[in-house]
Amino acid sequence: MNNFTFYSPTYFAFGKDAENDAGKYVRRFGGTKVLIHYGGGSVVRSGLLGRVKASLEAEGLGYVELGGVKPNPRSGLVYEGIELCRREGVDFVLAVGGGSSIDSAKAIAAGTVYEGDFWDFYQGKPVVKALPIGTVLTIAAAGSEGSPDSVITYEDGMYKRGASGEALRPAFSILNPALTQTLPPYQTACGITDIMAHLYERYLTNTKEVEVTDRVIEALLKTMIHEGPRVIENPDNYEARANIMWAGMLAHNNCCGVGRSQDWTSHDVEHELSAIYDCAHGAGLAVVMPAVFTYVMKHDVMRFAQAAVRVWGCEMDFANPENTAKAGIEALRRFLISIGMPKNFAELGAKEEDIPTLAHNACYGDVRTGSLGGFVSLNEEDVANIYKLMV
Amino acid sequence: MNNFTFYSPTYFAFGKDAENDAGKYVRRFGGTKVLIHYGGGSVVRSGLLGRVKASLEAEGLGYVELGGVKPNPRSGLVYEGIELCRREGVDFVLAVGGGSSIDSAKAIAAGTVYEGDFWDFYQGKPVVKALPIGTVLTIAAAGSEGSPDSVITYEDGMYKRGASGEALRPAFSILNPALTQTLPPYQTACGITDIMAHLYERYLTNTKEVEVTDRVIEALLKTMIHEGPRVIENPDNYEARANIMWAGMLAHNNCCGVGRSQDWTSHDVEHELSAIYDCAHGAGLAVVMPAVFTYVMKHDVMRFAQAAVRVWGCEMDFANPENTAKAGIEALRRFLISIGMPKNFAELGAKEEDIPTLAHNACYGDVRTGSLGGFVSLNEEDVANIYKLMV
Repeated sequence: MNNFTFYSPTYFAFGKDAENDAGKYVRRFGGTKVLIHYGGGSVVRSGLLGRVKASLEAEGLGYVELGGVKPNPRSGLVYEGIELCRREGVDFVLAVGGGSSIDSAKAIAAGTVYEGDFWDFYQGKPVVKALPIGTVLTIAAAGSEGSPDSVITYEDGMYKRGASGEALRPAFSILNPALTQTLPPYQTACGITDIMAHLYERYLTNTKEVEVTDRVIEALLKTMIHEGPRVIENPDNYEARANIMWAGMLAHNNCCGVGRSQDWTSHDVEHELSAIYDCAHGAGLAVVMPAVFTYVMKHDVMRFAQAAVRVWGCEMDFANPENTAKAGIEALRRFLISIGMPKNFAELGAKEEDIPTLAHNACYGDVRTGSLGGFVSLNEEDVANIYKLMV
Repeated sequence: MNNFTFYSPTYFAFGKDAENDAGKYVRRFGGTKVLIHYGGGSVVRSGLLGRVKASLEAEGLGYVELGGVKPNPRSGLVYEGIELCRREGVDFVLAVGGGSSIDSAKAIAAGTVYEGDFWDFYQGKPVVKALPIGTVLTIAAAGSEGSPDSVITYEDGMYKRGASGEALRPAFSILNPALTQTLPPYQTACGITDIMAHLYERYLTNTKEVEVTDRVIEALLKTMIHEGPRVIENPDNYEARANIMWAGMLAHNNCCGVGRSQDWTSHDVEHELSAIYDCAHGAGLAVVMPAVFTYVMKHDVMRFAQAAVRVWGCEMDFANPENTAKAGIEALRRFLISIGMPKNFAELGAKEEDIPTLAHNACYGDVRTGSLGGFVSLNEEDVANIYKLMV
């Protein structure tokens, strides 16, 4: 196991009606003037936004609003938010929505107190200072409610890149599983896929002797395998929603990723797809993961065999472990299809002729220098080959 | 799943030589004048105390020392520490040692800023204010490095009781697995047993639909089953020590205990033993757990069968699940014996004739009102019957 530090000081309030305490938590964590940041009309129509505002008003807190966050959130709205926060003297950013709203809120929170261009943070500069952030989560997926990360798409070039820094950990996050019950099955499945990807990206490690984090990752994957189909079959299943929601946080606050090298190839390969085709991140990951894993499997057959046996319940083929490794990847592929995810480029709306561009952008776009991958180092040709497996 | 809040803001620095940053972290978390609190001579002889002092001096931090914490830490030294902190204007308490030193440091940190008797907190008053606490952990066991809990034995009557409150979460904890390599196998095994007890006490729940926390608890138990024998066989095994150390933190910071009723019968039943016979807490738990589980097993046979199959790899007896449940308890019992733990009253130094006193104290001692247990409510007769199973 490698040396590490772990710091997850987010206060989680989990359960029914928890959003009614939003104002109380903003006050507790020092906010006096709040930016409420959200996406489209669903948080308005559902009455959630109204309840959050009422809770701020009950605490005598001032607020301004900025809606309009889109999936794969963009830089333009971030610049707008930064200007608004500065103009209005905002000292707390409250995201109401999913990972897109939260990631956009994080970018605004960091950019407001930074003299330079906020995009610097998405080109590798660590975020050491930001306005405090709170979240009211409406989809279990990105894990941004407990993570120090944010992903934004820069509109000039459509680069989708991540920033990181302890200052981006939310001060509090409100997780009410009931708020996710209105999500359509497709979006729910996208969230499940994203959570599973966060787990697999950590599972694919070159660090030896990581039994404890291996086991916890496997536990969370098994939770998704058990609860995923239940919630797709019955979107109103509060209990399954609750288990998925807490698993989604644990999957990405890094308690199960510490002390080990991680991969993040699938995310990098996927980001090119959702940046260009604007597909859902989770849907992209469903197509990407089996392709990436098939391509890199021979690097460590026993690791994939371990996942196959421990997570998917495959029988170990002791004469030929590679068969077991493949069976585990196939089990993942079938599972993702079974919950309604796309299985190839066509179903995703991606085009084979774009592969050279996709591979080039993944390896050289923006600040990249020719390769990606923490498990296996992949060059442009490798990445093109991976995209070809998705056609 | 029940509603819950979860707040674990401890900064963890994990790995080799991490203790050399103790001064840096004290400064980061606001300390200027430190009480270094520790137990016996081993932290002095090993040079650990010297390295910690040097790191404080390098940051220009003042400090005073109070050693002498004993296993099953006592109220007398806590009173002494409170007086010392007040007299010297201490604003940060740094524990160097295991759970006993940390728990004693927590009591001092709470008592110093409280006008009344610190023992109030151990009779049920929540701790809402305390000096900030840091820890340099030397044994993976109690989980106090990441928990909001403390257990102290009151010398007038030898009551062993717990206090709790978010203010008792350490500001930082330094976890260097190498510091645990000098522990004798017996103490190491006591720590492993304590960690497993923290997991079982959470596993025994009456809350339905807790897949995610069930699975994480099982993952951590499997980690102990895998790593425990390796470290007993080779105390110098850094990697096994590291896996056990992180598992010990996750087992007790409550990330796997949220949203579900918990038990704590085994701890309450054991505390009477270590309070009176001054045996190691872990050794007591090794004798107590199989007895408690055997006694309460019929309350939820399927829960014990699930543990047997998922954690211990027992084969499910579909015709008679009770056989499987029993096999899981027997597997636990055999495992604890295999790592060198005692199996009955005689090996623990406990006496059958004391059972009426033990049972009475457990149910009526101090502030108790006649019963204990979160899984099954147990009265004095039940508790006496459980002790009899240990003879």
